[in-house]
Amino acid sequence: MIEQRIRNAAYRDKMMSPSQAASLIQDGMTVGLSGFTRSGDAKVVPLALVERVKASGEALKINLFTGASIGDEVDGVLAEAGIINKRLPFQNEKKMRAKINEGELLYIDQHLSHTAEQLRNGFLPPIDVAILEIVAITEEGGIVPSTSVGNSSIFASMAKQIILELNLAQPLGLEGIHDIYEPEKQGRRQPIPLVGVDQRIGTPYIQIDFEKVAAVVLTEKSDQTSAIAAPDHETERMAEHLIEFFEHEIKRGRLPRSLAPLQSGIGSVANAVLHGFLKSECTDLEVYSEVLQDAVFDLMDAGRVKFASACSITLSPERAREVIANIDRYRDRILLRPQEISNHPEIIRRLGLICINTAIECDIYGNVNSTHIMGSKMMNGIGGSGDFARNALMGIFVTKSTAKGGSISSIVPFVSHVDHTEHDVDLIVTEQGLADLRGLAPRERARVVIENCAHPMYKDALLDYYREALKRGGHTPHLLEEALAWHVRYAQQGTMQN
Amino acid sequence: MIEQRIRNAAYRDKMMSPSQAASLIQDGMTVGLSGFTRSGDAKVVPLALVERVKASGEALKINLFTGASIGDEVDGVLAEAGIINKRLPFQNEKKMRAKINEGELLYIDQHLSHTAEQLRNGFLPPIDVAILEIVAITEEGGIVPSTSVGNSSIFASMAKQIILELNLAQPLGLEGIHDIYEPEKQGRRQPIPLVGVDQRIGTPYIQIDFEKVAAVVLTEKSDQTSAIAAPDHETERMAEHLIEFFEHEIKRGRLPRSLAPLQSGIGSVANAVLHGFLKSECTDLEVYSEVLQDAVFDLMDAGRVKFASACSITLSPERAREVIANIDRYRDRILLRPQEISNHPEIIRRLGLICINTAIECDIYGNVNSTHIMGSKMMNGIGGSGDFARNALMGIFVTKSTAKGGSISSIVPFVSHVDHTEHDVDLIVTEQGLADLRGLAPRERARVVIENCAHPMYKDALLDYYREALKRGGHTPHLLEEALAWHVRYAQQGTMQN
Repeated sequence: MIEQRIRNAAYRDKMMSPSQAASLIQDGMTVGLSGFTRSGDAKVVPLALVERVKASGEALKINLFTGASIGDEVDGVLAEAGIINKRLPFQNEKKMRAKINEGELLYIDQHLSHTAEQLRNGFLPPIDVAILEIVAITEEGGIVPSTSVGNSSIFASMAKQIILELNLAQPLGLEGIHDIYEPEKQGRRQPIPLVGVDQRIGTPYIQIDFEKVAAVVLTEKSDQTSAIAAPDHETERMAEHLIEFFEHEIKRGRLPRSLAPLQSGIGSVANAVLHGFLKSECTDLEVYSEVLQDAVFDLMDAGRVKFASACSITLSPERAREVIANIDRYRDRILLRPQEISNHPEIIRRLGLICINTAIECDIYGNVNSTHIMGSKMMNGIGGSGDFARNALMGIFVTKSTAKGGSISSIVPFVSHVDHTEHDVDLIVTEQGLADLRGLAPRERARVVIENCAHPMYKDALLDYYREALKRGGHTPHLLEEALAWHVRYAQQGTMQN
Repeated sequence: MIEQRIRNAAYRDKMMSPSQAASLIQDGMTVGLSGFTRSGDAKVVPLALVERVKASGEALKINLFTGASIGDEVDGVLAEAGIINKRLPFQNEKKMRAKINEGELLYIDQHLSHTAEQLRNGFLPPIDVAILEIVAITEEGGIVPSTSVGNSSIFASMAKQIILELNLAQPLGLEGIHDIYEPEKQGRRQPIPLVGVDQRIGTPYIQIDFEKVAAVVLTEKSDQTSAIAAPDHETERMAEHLIEFFEHEIKRGRLPRSLAPLQSGIGSVANAVLHGFLKSECTDLEVYSEVLQDAVFDLMDAGRVKFASACSITLSPERAREVIANIDRYRDRILLRPQEISNHPEIIRRLGLICINTAIECDIYGNVNSTHIMGSKMMNGIGGSGDFARNALMGIFVTKSTAKGGSISSIVPFVSHVDHTEHDVDLIVTEQGLADLRGLAPRERARVVIENCAHPMYKDALLDYYREALKRGGHTPHLLEEALAWHVRYAQQGTMQN
């Protein structure tokens, strides 16, 4: 069994327990953890570290770098233990979010393609220890990641020491679905040769330095997947608006029936919208995304998606059991790449992706907030949405037109935080309708966003704001003294309604 | 003489007067004009069009697309005549700005690398007529641009008809400094082969369809260059802070003595800061930018810059006379490319540029406004700053810490418009100092931006805001009811000071 998984015998001499491995981690270190959207994250060594700190009472703080979010259990336990100094580039866990918003944990919310470059250039603290989940070590000593690649390859190449978590609960059948390509340093780099979604440009394993491997730990702990909300009436309406739009573009000759490779952000809304393609007449679709959620596999099963590339597979518990157990059914139709390749501006722009990401709120001029609740409180992070939207063929943002039972309008006069500027947002879609902002000036955008996307109960108030602002003039007319009044009202009165 | 300039005889039969050529332009058309930062713009045909409209009194509106800004005379006269419906992707002219802010002219402020893609994808109105300034037509019928390439090649390939303005005041010696490469449509595209600043990847002329050429017009009207403010005490201080920072990075081994290829935005401040490199110990510098201003040629003359690539040469009147008359001295050390190549995310990221652009205002968390005065009024536009900053090795923004004699602080609690998000801004530099934001969380950024960059007369007020906001908590602490109060105060009282 182990011989199948650790095919290079020298590595077997490095096996130790999680707590032995965790003893390598010292105060002040920067730790790079595998894991992207709760998949393929290192699990047992970080948890053993927390156990050690709890038992010893030692004062220990580490910087924690990952691919994106990791399982709630690990991020939650680490946050609760109070041992994180800095955390980047993404998180999605309740207890950690609370610590971030209390200022007890320093969070750096980065474009997901940027972390690798910043490490390579020495602009971030060097990685002392990389802890990487794998399914196998090859004869030549390459390591095979599990359900995500994320930042594992850059962590492996930059780290001083490497701890491998060989996860026997992840099937060996995952071997062969990875494509690892690491660009040279900026300035000495050749073009990344990827010109098609299904193209292999690297190796099916991460090549590592044997000397740096400090421990191999066995584990059987599964990815801590989470339920994905099923499509509801509102997400179905959003999907219908989008499909109708694509049909229109096909008729106008601006898109072929196979559209363009699709990217879809993490989360229930984006998944539900993608699900809507089941009802479309689109075929031969391709997916070039950072994460493959349930909808992508449903679309593959339905014969609509012919190939999907990403840096992670994140499924609901039921779908995970099915897909991972039957990975052979999909292995010729999926590839997992490092996140700097799945999210690389060079590739996104070259392939011309249709990118669908979730907004928290949009303003009437097309600026989008993806990260902050009422301007101050971090929700999750920007993730890859900036990598994608800026370089997309079409940058599409979806959101329900209201939140909290209608007390919050997702269409506001002025967003309380900007993650995507008016220069980057092509379409906004709510259950109310779709605003096609391509080729529109700000005053044109305001009318179409209010008319097509706002909830009826907020339309008049938005129009009132816009009309008053128009009297003052300007390219992007605003009443600065009232621009954020909707958010202030919500904070004070619990509703944006006047 | 003409035989030297129009070397393909068939084109000589297409010669006509500016007013004859202007008669091809009809109401409702979309016109693509050569020109980038007031250089190499088509001049006499647009002016003849205005003459015609004035004389006839006809109701005519056109959409005007360019590379970037064109000469004040042309944009100003067109704006004044009231014949522009939509204008994109950049402008920099007083009368036009007034019309934009009055809402009489619809302006679309785009990333300068985006226009070509949007035209190619049919997301903008098709170009009816392209009017392109050139210095020559080759034997094979290729056209040689003058002092800018801008969007000329995409306009030429997409336009239904082409009018050529052969400018005899632009020296034939410009022939050979252009490198024209046009990517295929997204999705069918190969990697752009450029891996070095001095590398040629295309042809020294734009290949066009002879059948589409409707007119060749002779002109001797020079580029309408404008004076560039000389470095002053404050821009010299900014340059010193930056040079000191680079020396520090060199000592830490993060940059070589030749740094990385430099990009510098248009305008007096960026030019003055670049000028500061004359006093540095940096050698073998390379420039990969959208525009070459006086400072780049000064640095070449001083032996500091060895090669410079851009899509335009924009010089002060004195420097223009010198450089253009002695173009042979520089011809082996400069290349002018289409703006989608000079500003292409693929190339910017690959080469790892150091990008220096001007901010109107920055907030304490590192968000930057490059375009709007007090949130509503358009100044010029985002230009290429978004193409560069997002994909740079280092995204640097420079601004004087105050404006209007101290009544405006350029460091504010909350910017009134966001063009560059906190995710994209690595350094902020004012005459007060430099804030290195790499690897910092928002709360850390606030302290360093206030401490290092704000003017002493605004420091306490910024700290007060920040400390009050901290009491409310959040990842990015804000007091939304006061966030824009500084701008409101300026509008009401003529100063941000309390």
